[in-house]
Amino acid sequence: MHAPTPFRYEQLASLIVGMIDNGALAPGARLPSVRAVSEQHQISISTALQAYRLLEDRGVLIARPQSGFYVAATRRKALGLPSTSRAAAKPSSVSISGVVAALLEHASNPALVPLGCAFPDAELMQAKRLDLALARAARQHGVRHNIYTPPSGDMRLRCEIAKRAMRVGHTLSPDDVIITAGCTEALTLALTVVATRGDTIAIESPSYFGLLHTIEMLGLKAFELPTHPTRGVDVDALAGLLESVPVAACVLSSNFNNPLGSAMPEPDKRELLAILDRHNVPLIEDDVYGDIYFGREKPKPFIALDNGGNTIYCGSFSKSLAPGYRIGWLAARKYAQQLMERKLAFSLCSPALPQVALADFLESGAYEVHLRAIRRIFEDNLARMTRTIEESFPPDTKVSQPVGGYVLWLEMPRRFDSRALFDRALEEGICFAPGIAFSASGRFRNCLRLSAGHTWSQQVADGVRRLGQLAKDQLVSSPTSN
Amino acid sequence: MHAPTPFRYEQLASLIVGMIDNGALAPGARLPSVRAVSEQHQISISTALQAYRLLEDRGVLIARPQSGFYVAATRRKALGLPSTSRAAAKPSSVSISGVVAALLEHASNPALVPLGCAFPDAELMQAKRLDLALARAARQHGVRHNIYTPPSGDMRLRCEIAKRAMRVGHTLSPDDVIITAGCTEALTLALTVVATRGDTIAIESPSYFGLLHTIEMLGLKAFELPTHPTRGVDVDALAGLLESVPVAACVLSSNFNNPLGSAMPEPDKRELLAILDRHNVPLIEDDVYGDIYFGREKPKPFIALDNGGNTIYCGSFSKSLAPGYRIGWLAARKYAQQLMERKLAFSLCSPALPQVALADFLESGAYEVHLRAIRRIFEDNLARMTRTIEESFPPDTKVSQPVGGYVLWLEMPRRFDSRALFDRALEEGICFAPGIAFSASGRFRNCLRLSAGHTWSQQVADGVRRLGQLAKDQLVSSPTSN
Repeated sequence: MHAPTPFRYEQLASLIVGMIDNGALAPGARLPSVRAVSEQHQISISTALQAYRLLEDRGVLIARPQSGFYVAATRRKALGLPSTSRAAAKPSSVSISGVVAALLEHASNPALVPLGCAFPDAELMQAKRLDLALARAARQHGVRHNIYTPPSGDMRLRCEIAKRAMRVGHTLSPDDVIITAGCTEALTLALTVVATRGDTIAIESPSYFGLLHTIEMLGLKAFELPTHPTRGVDVDALAGLLESVPVAACVLSSNFNNPLGSAMPEPDKRELLAILDRHNVPLIEDDVYGDIYFGREKPKPFIALDNGGNTIYCGSFSKSLAPGYRIGWLAARKYAQQLMERKLAFSLCSPALPQVALADFLESGAYEVHLRAIRRIFEDNLARMTRTIEESFPPDTKVSQPVGGYVLWLEMPRRFDSRALFDRALEEGICFAPGIAFSASGRFRNCLRLSAGHTWSQQVADGVRRLGQLAKDQLVSSPTSN
Repeated sequence: MHAPTPFRYEQLASLIVGMIDNGALAPGARLPSVRAVSEQHQISISTALQAYRLLEDRGVLIARPQSGFYVAATRRKALGLPSTSRAAAKPSSVSISGVVAALLEHASNPALVPLGCAFPDAELMQAKRLDLALARAARQHGVRHNIYTPPSGDMRLRCEIAKRAMRVGHTLSPDDVIITAGCTEALTLALTVVATRGDTIAIESPSYFGLLHTIEMLGLKAFELPTHPTRGVDVDALAGLLESVPVAACVLSSNFNNPLGSAMPEPDKRELLAILDRHNVPLIEDDVYGDIYFGREKPKPFIALDNGGNTIYCGSFSKSLAPGYRIGWLAARKYAQQLMERKLAFSLCSPALPQVALADFLESGAYEVHLRAIRRIFEDNLARMTRTIEESFPPDTKVSQPVGGYVLWLEMPRRFDSRALFDRALEEGICFAPGIAFSASGRFRNCLRLSAGHTWSQQVADGVRRLGQLAKDQLVSSPTSN
């Protein structure tokens, strides 16, 4: 299958943004009428209107009733990017489980505005077809599949996963795929293969709190690498670290970092792999957001660039299709046997019928269609959320510019306390993820992560706005000198 | 729900066995005609015939065409019980994964006579109704359940599990139940809560190879306790061990030991709990076979007898209903929070729809009906298999007398090599589990486990007979002096 072609309205929107960027369309300029642009580009009026509405949603254009569309004259200066995180002084024992438990308790509360956990909106997932495949498999083949699968999982599903890997240039044998209970089990099994209690794991900073929690439960230590908000971990810093500290493994989620939404440039990825290879340090790659990219094609995962074969790849369908199915996978030639032994010891195998249903679904080609749809939805959600933040948060707020996934990372002035905001926001029925949940060493107290995984709605918009007001209130009541 | 009443044909069969045992019916004696017995006991002719046929299957009666049923005159002396295993000299590092992998590779091969793994026959499981519940849940409520459940699992399922625990006198709150990927994940999570790398775990001997494999993967050591073939672990030996060796936990599968099929008497269980309590050593109880009992009611699990609350209970539906669903659970008040944190770190949560389907199924009451049916089938399978072993194996073979589950444990003369038999049997298309897979220290080379989990058939009977012949051949070709 080829890289998907953008829809025509997306092409037109890109063209207009390009003209604004290069000055061909000045701030305040009136755009051609929808009718004129539809004739000029030989597209339907509704397609032209869709492009204009998209840019209106993103704050690029402004619609004036009875007049038309204009380039936003008062387009606010975009908020700055969060800072590059600094290098850790030493490995940290992790003690995050209290924070994580508190967050999850509230994150699953449907009464709250759902900005807390990076769960995709079940309504957006359109997994109906997958559910029907499950219903069919259960009705027709229940008895045949009421058995343990091999520890590595259903062969048809592994074949489909291997086929998809080929598209990003990763030649993968189904025998090197192991089906897991989501990315969480994949990460756990991978970590137990390459590290034992007390070992140090090098990680991005900020890093997904679930990874930190697993590191804590396995009795490992985390070393937080300096991380740029769009380019990812500092490769030189990693090289320096490996010269001075024994590191059992490096865990990266580079397409796309959670919470930054950043993708590491490919040359940096290659350099990082070379450094790890030189020190014989394995890389565990968490690619759970990899299919939700906003560019023309999926950034290559590390494993597709790794000739040394020292990468253990962790993937999942939880963020992009079916969180309820708990199906992820491991891919790793060199470690396949050891990973399979751990899978056998830790959970024997994964449930059979959900795997059968997912294999049917993937074979049908429906997944690619679904992905095309949700990529646009999530990109759009992020754009609307960014605009709402620009309008409502303190002016010195910094915000990430994700190129994939569906979360935003906000950095407030250093004196800001996002835990206090968390408690305050809960009182008003709003949930988000406080920054300290993303650090092994108590960093990011002044940061927060907002999820844009839910359908954009008045409730979500109001929640973001109210959060902005609460943030302003806190800063006003805590003087700068603090 | 009350303890199930035996069927009338079972009552009659028991009566006849009792009369044979107390001499009222001598070997070779002719039984009353089916018509006579049906009038005498006021039962239907088909019920009377069902009782006679059951006893014929078990080798108690012999049918002579045109003549009637007779007490088996040439009833072979039953084979003796396997020996009580001896005490280990010290804790053993475990290195079993090679054996386990080899066994599982063949055990799932449908071309082989399936005596290898203790999988229940999918055809016997009659999980059709469960599958239909899954199909219904997927069709009707897929979107609603396309989310992560809480780490501890679906609340309705936890309630049903807590209700069932009440019936064996175990007062359990749904909040203390954690849904897992079968008993395997339950055991793994429990072990990581109570032990760290290098710690010693006291276990039965023989013990289920999956437990040994998990102990190996977690870097723990196993101490094998002397174990009686019907009474279970030697409580005094455990008391002595705890005085001399630091033990992190004790893991027991006492209803019913796999591979012995034994149940520890309740007074022994109470004494064992008191000893563990005195030394503050937690007990992990694997009750995976607990629902497949042959007596009038389920033997009480340890957790129902444990006032100290130091027991972590591991249960599962894999052996008695749905191996393909991978649903088990943990129950433990004291450790509930720590177990939940591990579940979160290791696999986040279990898939949603299979839990919903199982909750529906349990609520319907269909599980109890199903259990009554399979208990009789497995007991019958074991009786037939025992009789076939008596007829075909070497006369000094010893065989277990299971009171639950569906496996038999055979002990051959000490010079016997069950690994050699394993390789030989595979050549003839027969799979079983060699004894060394059940020891951390290379014991039981002269033992083997046969599964009676499959529908009894000519193929299974022929497989057992052929295995007996191969065993005889090996003993003939290896002289006693060896």
